Amino acid sequence: MAKIGDKVSVEHKDKRYDGILMPSEEDSKDILILKLVNGYNIGFDKKETKVKVLESAREYKFPSAKLTKDKKLPKIVIITTGGTITSKVDYKTGAVHPLIRPEELLAQVPELSKIANIEIKNPFAVLSEDMTSKNWRDLAKEVMKALNSDAIGVIVTHGTDTLAYTASALSFMIKDLNKPVALVGGQRSSDRGSFDGALNLICAAYYCCSDIAEVSVVMHGTSSDDYCLAIPGTKARKMHTSRRDAFRPVNSLPFAKIYNKGMIELIRKDFNKRSTGKVKLDNKFEKKVALVKFAPGQGPGVVDYYAKQGYKGIILEGTGLGHVAITGLNSWIKSIQQAVKKGIFVGITSQCLYGRTDLFVYSNGRKLLDAGCIQLGDMLPETAYIKLGWALAHVKNSEDVKKLMLENISKEISEKEDPKSYLY
Amino acid sequence: MAKIGDKVSVEHKDKRYDGILMPSEEDSKDILILKLVNGYNIGFDKKETKVKVLESAREYKFPSAKLTKDKKLPKIVIITTGGTITSKVDYKTGAVHPLIRPEELLAQVPELSKIANIEIKNPFAVLSEDMTSKNWRDLAKEVMKALNSDAIGVIVTHGTDTLAYTASALSFMIKDLNKPVALVGGQRSSDRGSFDGALNLICAAYYCCSDIAEVSVVMHGTSSDDYCLAIPGTKARKMHTSRRDAFRPVNSLPFAKIYNKGMIELIRKDFNKRSTGKVKLDNKFEKKVALVKFAPGQGPGVVDYYAKQGYKGIILEGTGLGHVAITGLNSWIKSIQQAVKKGIFVGITSQCLYGRTDLFVYSNGRKLLDAGCIQLGDMLPETAYIKLGWALAHVKNSEDVKKLMLENISKEISEKEDPKSYLY
Repeated sequence: MAKIGDKVSVEHKDKRYDGILMPSEEDSKDILILKLVNGYNIGFDKKETKVKVLESAREYKFPSAKLTKDKKLPKIVIITTGGTITSKVDYKTGAVHPLIRPEELLAQVPELSKIANIEIKNPFAVLSEDMTSKNWRDLAKEVMKALNSDAIGVIVTHGTDTLAYTASALSFMIKDLNKPVALVGGQRSSDRGSFDGALNLICAAYYCCSDIAEVSVVMHGTSSDDYCLAIPGTKARKMHTSRRDAFRPVNSLPFAKIYNKGMIELIRKDFNKRSTGKVKLDNKFEKKVALVKFAPGQGPGVVDYYAKQGYKGIILEGTGLGHVAITGLNSWIKSIQQAVKKGIFVGITSQCLYGRTDLFVYSNGRKLLDAGCIQLGDMLPETAYIKLGWALAHVKNSEDVKKLMLENISKEISEKEDPKSYLY
Repeated sequence: MAKIGDKVSVEHKDKRYDGILMPSEEDSKDILILKLVNGYNIGFDKKETKVKVLESAREYKFPSAKLTKDKKLPKIVIITTGGTITSKVDYKTGAVHPLIRPEELLAQVPELSKIANIEIKNPFAVLSEDMTSKNWRDLAKEVMKALNSDAIGVIVTHGTDTLAYTASALSFMIKDLNKPVALVGGQRSSDRGSFDGALNLICAAYYCCSDIAEVSVVMHGTSSDDYCLAIPGTKARKMHTSRRDAFRPVNSLPFAKIYNKGMIELIRKDFNKRSTGKVKLDNKFEKKVALVKFAPGQGPGVVDYYAKQGYKGIILEGTGLGHVAITGLNSWIKSIQQAVKKGIFVGITSQCLYGRTDLFVYSNGRKLLDAGCIQLGDMLPETAYIKLGWALAHVKNSEDVKKLMLENISKEISEKEDPKSYLY
């Protein structure tokens, strides 16, 4: 009889799968969960499997490294918020353990203590998808404190799924940024051979030593361990569910490539430079904002729904240059007009992701503008969603919201497209 | 005083813009619309501009070519449905004219008549964003008729915005496909120097001569005019608002590169081969399906809304491996459970676009599975939305819908990822 943590071989529909037996979920005891050698889990109907024990479970011990202080080194604050990068699977119990003790993180990435003296803060531990605006606000406060300390820069570790949303939130919530802020995650947990968090953390530490006083996502540039990209927080997007080079800049070049030995190759030179001032916290956020993706055949009822629920703003992800249906029964015009009349901000982005909205090209687009939509250029839909929540907490009057949304606050809007940024 | 169609120079906020003066919209007479040399329109507040006439409007005449028949050439049916590719701006009136007469299309792309005898059908003319399931059904019928005629293949011209959605619809609505079906669009209209529709049509015609009996999107492979890609209809996505190489394969390689002289370089070899049978129309479609994109901080009310409206299926675009919030006030679990209980199919895709869902990796994901969600692997959200509408019109029982959604019907699901397909 196989026990949790055993190395087993599972036969299922004439195929064989080797891996570690994980505990089943409380509510689905009939599903056998196996952690494959590649680190991923797979579920099988227990009735359809034959299980053979290959090796009994071994006790797992977390490694630990001593936190030292070297007076010659600068200080970097690492703020952990949860997610794969600071997690480790205990194969004995199958539970995912957060690594919150600094010694554990440093044991994973011993190189860090050669770059800087690390101070670790852990305001909360939340999985990516469960992040809320409260988390963004709390985190911004923590980042503000670290930036106004003697640290040379701040690293935020975060689940990768919504890391780009949080990067956007920090980009808007911290004013007069004076030092580098790097957001890093891990696409693989630290118990796996392909753990990517180590290089991401090392490159983030080097990024903190640079003059780039911007909120950047610092993640693998390629699927190997050669360099990371520092991507503007408002222009970063998770473009792949599992690859280590999942984060790409959209409608932007990265600020820099950062190599694992610390070499920084600048790509964008228009970054905000390190300065000596203090940052200000500007983390008010209006929660009643929605992101709505349009699909052909889809009616506008969802806009009416959000309007009725008292939402203050809606970001539409239109097709192509920023379109939604405007003729026949499916027309969105009336619903948008009514929402705008109610004072709801309706912003238009493109589901293409790359490129920019342009509602002047076709008459359908001009009708949307007439209905009161505001086109948001090359802003990512996700960034626009975050920015709108932030903007609506700052100004109330429609004209002021529009002005703020169209103002380039943290590189979320580009004037011109560099052709090299397409599918970078 | 400048007249519509005049070449003018507009001074606005110390910048000068040259272009053709276009007519203002009925409802916004105070906006001056200028067609720039690059073909795009731009709008200015009339009060803030100074206009100088550079050249008076000239009468524009549409060119026309004679439709000939060459007995040695095969027949290709071109079905036009509207969109930029079959449009032309009349600079005199500013109106966009559909080019529905075969002679006009052939005048744009005279090469076509050297490849095949062209027969043109025009079942309807609709802009991309206004397409509905009725249009997909009518189009599928028209394609079926053409495929069951003596034509060697079918070309559908379509607005680019939702071209990929329609390609998906045709992929599911035509059974036992026997010949190539190419969907083509134009990112620039035929009055512009950078008109891309010509190469797309030529390559589509060569595609029709091939043995690839698949529904493909045939569009520019690069931003120059060297070759087009034939991308599986269920795996194609418009990834850029305006570039000529906007259409990319996602989680798939293209079937082939097609060069402008007719050379076809096969990339995927697992395509359905040309055959002599007849195709069957299978175009039933359930309209009550929704595509819902999740964003962190967003509550599940929209799921309740669609459930209340009697929707039969919802495709969620989750984060990363397919997640939505599952803790706290924002948790989607209860809404999903209730929807599933009502018999609504809830499918999970990823907003990353590249990669595949895997809800077994994290316990949050397993809770979604327990709530009754079905994960749809590497299916694109847009394809899943179309497939679900089609599937729900075919089977009613939840288990049957699930089975159909997880069955690979038209290459919408891949077993394995080719690393070369990422950001292809």
